[in-house]
Amino acid sequence: MNLNFASDNTGPVAQPIMDAIVAANTGAAMPYGDDDWMPGVRDALRDLFDWPEAEVLLVATGTGANVLALAGMVAPWETIFAHRNSHIERSECGAPEFYTGGAKLTLIDGEGSRIAPDALRAAMAVVGTKDIHGVQRGALSLTNVTESGTLYSLDDLDALTGIARDAGMGTHLDGARFANACAALGCSAAQLARGFDMVSFGGTKNGCMGVEAIVMRDGAKHWEMQLRRKRGAQLWSKHRYLSVQMAAYLKDGLWLENARTANAAGQRLAAGLRRIGAEMAHEPQANMIFCRMPRAMHDRALGQARYGLMDEGERPLCRMVCDFTKTEAEVDRLLELLAG
Amino acid sequence: MNLNFASDNTGPVAQPIMDAIVAANTGAAMPYGDDDWMPGVRDALRDLFDWPEAEVLLVATGTGANVLALAGMVAPWETIFAHRNSHIERSECGAPEFYTGGAKLTLIDGEGSRIAPDALRAAMAVVGTKDIHGVQRGALSLTNVTESGTLYSLDDLDALTGIARDAGMGTHLDGARFANACAALGCSAAQLARGFDMVSFGGTKNGCMGVEAIVMRDGAKHWEMQLRRKRGAQLWSKHRYLSVQMAAYLKDGLWLENARTANAAGQRLAAGLRRIGAEMAHEPQANMIFCRMPRAMHDRALGQARYGLMDEGERPLCRMVCDFTKTEAEVDRLLELLAG
Amino acid sequence: MNLNFASDNTGPVAQPIMDAIVAANTGAAMPYGDDDWMPGVRDALRDLFDWPEAEVLLVATGTGANVLALAGMVAPWETIFAHRNSHIERSECGAPEFYTGGAKLTLIDGEGSRIAPDALRAAMAVVGTKDIHGVQRGALSLTNVTESGTLYSLDDLDALTGIARDAGMGTHLDGARFANACAALGCSAAQLARGFDMVSFGGTKNGCMGVEAIVMRDGAKHWEMQLRRKRGAQLWSKHRYLSVQMAAYLKDGLWLENARTANAAGQRLAAGLRRIGAEMAHEPQANMIFCRMPRAMHDRALGQARYGLMDEGERPLCRMVCDFTKTEAEVDRLLELLAG
Amino acid sequence: MNLNFASDNTGPVAQPIMDAIVAANTGAAMPYGDDDWMPGVRDALRDLFDWPEAEVLLVATGTGANVLALAGMVAPWETIFAHRNSHIERSECGAPEFYTGGAKLTLIDGEGSRIAPDALRAAMAVVGTKDIHGVQRGALSLTNVTESGTLYSLDDLDALTGIARDAGMGTHLDGARFANACAALGCSAAQLARGFDMVSFGGTKNGCMGVEAIVMRDGAKHWEMQLRRKRGAQLWSKHRYLSVQMAAYLKDGLWLENARTANAAGQRLAAGLRRIGAEMAHEPQANMIFCRMPRAMHDRALGQARYGLMDEGERPLCRMVCDFTKTEAEVDRLLELLAG
Repeated sequence: MNLNFASDNTGPVAQPIMDAIVAANTGAAMPYGDDDWMPGVRDALRDLFDWPEAEVLLVATGTGANVLALAGMVAPWETIFAHRNSHIERSECGAPEFYTGGAKLTLIDGEGSRIAPDALRAAMAVVGTKDIHGVQRGALSLTNVTESGTLYSLDDLDALTGIARDAGMGTHLDGARFANACAALGCSAAQLARGFDMVSFGGTKNGCMGVEAIVMRDGAKHWEMQLRRKRGAQLWSKHRYLSVQMAAYLKDGLWLENARTANAAGQRLAAGLRRIGAEMAHEPQANMIFCRMPRAMHDRALGQARYGLMDEGERPLCRMVCDFTKTEAEVDRLLELLAG
Repeated sequence: MNLNFASDNTGPVAQPIMDAIVAANTGAAMPYGDDDWMPGVRDALRDLFDWPEAEVLLVATGTGANVLALAGMVAPWETIFAHRNSHIERSECGAPEFYTGGAKLTLIDGEGSRIAPDALRAAMAVVGTKDIHGVQRGALSLTNVTESGTLYSLDDLDALTGIARDAGMGTHLDGARFANACAALGCSAAQLARGFDMVSFGGTKNGCMGVEAIVMRDGAKHWEMQLRRKRGAQLWSKHRYLSVQMAAYLKDGLWLENARTANAAGQRLAAGLRRIGAEMAHEPQANMIFCRMPRAMHDRALGQARYGLMDEGERPLCRMVCDFTKTEAEVDRLLELLAG
Repeated sequence: MNLNFASDNTGPVAQPIMDAIVAANTGAAMPYGDDDWMPGVRDALRDLFDWPEAEVLLVATGTGANVLALAGMVAPWETIFAHRNSHIERSECGAPEFYTGGAKLTLIDGEGSRIAPDALRAAMAVVGTKDIHGVQRGALSLTNVTESGTLYSLDDLDALTGIARDAGMGTHLDGARFANACAALGCSAAQLARGFDMVSFGGTKNGCMGVEAIVMRDGAKHWEMQLRRKRGAQLWSKHRYLSVQMAAYLKDGLWLENARTANAAGQRLAAGLRRIGAEMAHEPQANMIFCRMPRAMHDRALGQARYGLMDEGERPLCRMVCDFTKTEAEVDRLLELLAG
Repeated sequence: MNLNFASDNTGPVAQPIMDAIVAANTGAAMPYGDDDWMPGVRDALRDLFDWPEAEVLLVATGTGANVLALAGMVAPWETIFAHRNSHIERSECGAPEFYTGGAKLTLIDGEGSRIAPDALRAAMAVVGTKDIHGVQRGALSLTNVTESGTLYSLDDLDALTGIARDAGMGTHLDGARFANACAALGCSAAQLARGFDMVSFGGTKNGCMGVEAIVMRDGAKHWEMQLRRKRGAQLWSKHRYLSVQMAAYLKDGLWLENARTANAAGQRLAAGLRRIGAEMAHEPQANMIFCRMPRAMHDRALGQARYGLMDEGERPLCRMVCDFTKTEAEVDRLLELLAG
């Protein structure tokens, strides 16, 4: 029984993906993305996103996908509008600044790690256009599922990406939990992606070993992006092992199925937590929960289950994430431990 | 029969390493290097290098290992002395410049991609110390097995690293083929590493899926190097899959055994090539061969075997590399094809 | 009559400084800071700051002084705590990010462009220490006179720099209006600088042609800082023309005298503005005023006087700055125009 | 009598330029390039270069002009082809790497610091196009007058810039001694510039206090280049003092007249040196001389005259430069000292 709810990156690789890795482990394959699996991966993502001209690069980390995508969109003297809680701001140790050559992030507040249209407009108003002294407007980066476990609706996304597009800015989706967002919204990948120029399409948190796809709507950027990936030291030599992960992840809807499982576990856990008296910090809309509970409740699970503790005190803020392996029994056992 | 001799990165993952990956694929593991396998990896490399204070970081690409190591050794206004043919100069798309914040590479010529002590001294003489107008001396980076398939002897390395150390410079070994060098020199890892501050200890080309160890003699740099790795987007979340690769690679001398196999295939191939009239461009001392052959000879293998063609013409320069999977039968078959 | 109140950089060079430039314009002088005037400049600033080990670099722009100082204090993976309105955030087009290799600025709000100790502590609490995912604490940068024309008291500065020092962070003072701050606070340069490691000591806005001194308390950083300046393309060849400006600026207290004149004009203007019904946006404590006035009042001066218009509307926010050349007659004339 | 021949940056400011600075020192002027003199400077350079769409930026250092121009022409993953002795390689402390975000310099050898067309072609052949592993071709940077005091003829320049243009590369002229080149070649500025996209048009070495013009043929780059200049901390606030220098320098052909004077002094010195037995290291074609002389000859001038000593030994290599102030009497006195 796996009672580690610390993150959706603590779990193993989904069996169909591991099987594909093992199956590919024979004979020679051309390196650096010239393997036989990669064209299929690109085509599958073109179909999924309904972007017929799209190009795809695979990298091994989510930070890598985000920062290469952003570097392909903004000049060093521009700024990226993002939520204050965004992964690119809080959890990438300045990698966006590194890869963009020193672009700025303009941080926007908002409940549940969501940016409201007015807040975006207000932030954009501060950043000059044609004022030589300040940085310039560069791109908008959104995360869905957000870092708080909430969702932007399709309408929310359309509103925000529309504002950015009207201002001539590029748009980037940090889709580390892209699949969980689709599953929770009941929408297609194409719908989720429709307002964006570049998408970090996550695999690692949802059953892969370590692969994320940078999906760029505009295939004309492919060559530059390849150079950026190589220069970023993120081009795999035995690339087939990235390709087959992504191929297996996309095959027969495994990506969506895994996400549905994870989301269902998350919803079951959230309902249970509410039942036993935990208070949701945000509405948990997918597989990630932020809640406050009495210290005594938390202490009862100590040493038997794991999850994130975001602060201390009498009612600590806890972060719990269900990955695609979480069973009802595991969720219920955690609740049992907490309830005492 | 695998007749791809294009590189030692076209082959599959060694079975014991794939087995270890599969075996580790169960339950939860802490991410980002906090998994249960990593301490053992560090200890094994400390023992192997006889560096009791060493720290180890794992990354997925050889370029990543090289450039993080170099970035940890030189300031942006310094220069790295390296061979003109070095991987860091020729095959990393400027990643060293990117990661170091714009340090320079001072290129040195030399037969067989080897730097001679006098050539190093001459290059260092040009770079000022305490001259504000030029860049400053930073580090020496050597590759062994070299990019030409030749070797530095231990004495060669001692001479070069001694010059660097006397000048207060750091020393880096690009050991993408570290194991092949040990096998060919008949020396221990500790002997090969003894003159260096930082070693890129390669796994990928010699049986791993994608893992390289940055071994730093001075453990005090560990925290800074961890930040550099994260900021470089090279910190794996499901890090266990890097750890177990390296653990299996180091276990029971697999690293050395694979290299011996590869080198033996390389030597067999070189001897055969000489026999059929190919001319060695450099003395092939490990598993990589650069040779010139009549155009007609090359044409006979076309479409049936693969290897690198470095130039065109009547006597093209060919690059052939044997990885740890190459059998005598495969080597002989290639020779047969070429001989006609 | 000069009715340009747009900035203290629209004015001419003070006569004693221009005289010194002209006087130095004869014969040969060694370039790059090896001229005969520079040692005296360094010694004068050592005395003024009471920093016997200090070293000094001269550059031609305030942005240059700020960003070189910051680059000498923070690693690329660190953050600089600064006010949201700070010049380094708002008016340097990302130069701090460029020169630091991509360090972040953590922005803090506060009335009158002043940071309160609790606000600094709160911002620092968000930035992890020893959390590999986020950037690390780097330095505190304060501006005095602030960007709103207000002042930090010596006690304010001691409190803030104390917090930074206790956390192991470096401290930087953007002293573009250092002299105006000393004049307004009635304190010595040494008192104003006492909590800081690096000071941008401004000359340009207060009578020089274009020279700012980076005064570093720790002389051991001198060589690195010289390299950073050269690499930043900010090392003058005919350096004597920077040295003599600064020498003349420091001679016989000209720096302080000019600032007193400017501040007196600023205070006269502020009093007059209040009298005619303008509303101060912040308490104008030196030579810079932010005020709101009826649109009609503003319109009366249009085309006859110049100053900054920060927004539009019925009661626009206006920025007026008095430099050391502003006479009582010029101030009164502006008031007359506005009063109608 | 000024016997400093160390460089053409040790001399004073030409009187007409100093007069213009003093004359401009009255009243208010808009900062940051919005002064009344700047449009005239731009127009004068458009005329001089016969580039009707050109835009012009002024900066205070030659390194600044070079690196901003190069940064505007190459991507971080590209390389700049330049002579091994070029100022951008040898005398800018890595500023090109800094400003370009880590582009490489590909160094080319050649007598007299001149690149031969075949040498350029050979260097370009090594740099891949569409090879993801290496850096890409970016730009060609030439210096005229060269760093050895020799000249490229107009035909030489046409050949080299033609090769670059045919390969799709940008072309940059380091014209720190642009005027000396025009004077020596007897050509117009337009002729000298005709093959280039960006020119660093030097003023400082030839009579200005500290001003260099970046002249960009393609005015469409103006806004980006302005942002780069600001971000590089090279945008002057009291910009009028840059504008008036350049305006005076361009007025009535002062730039060319100064260069003719300097070149004549250089030629007189070279003839004299030959007469007394010094051996020219390169043909001195403008105002800079590299020669070897017996140690005893050098020793006779010690302490009475200054010039560069490039190496030690029995026949040291000496560098002597004449600026526009050098009189025949000063040249003859140096010869007298050396001759003994």
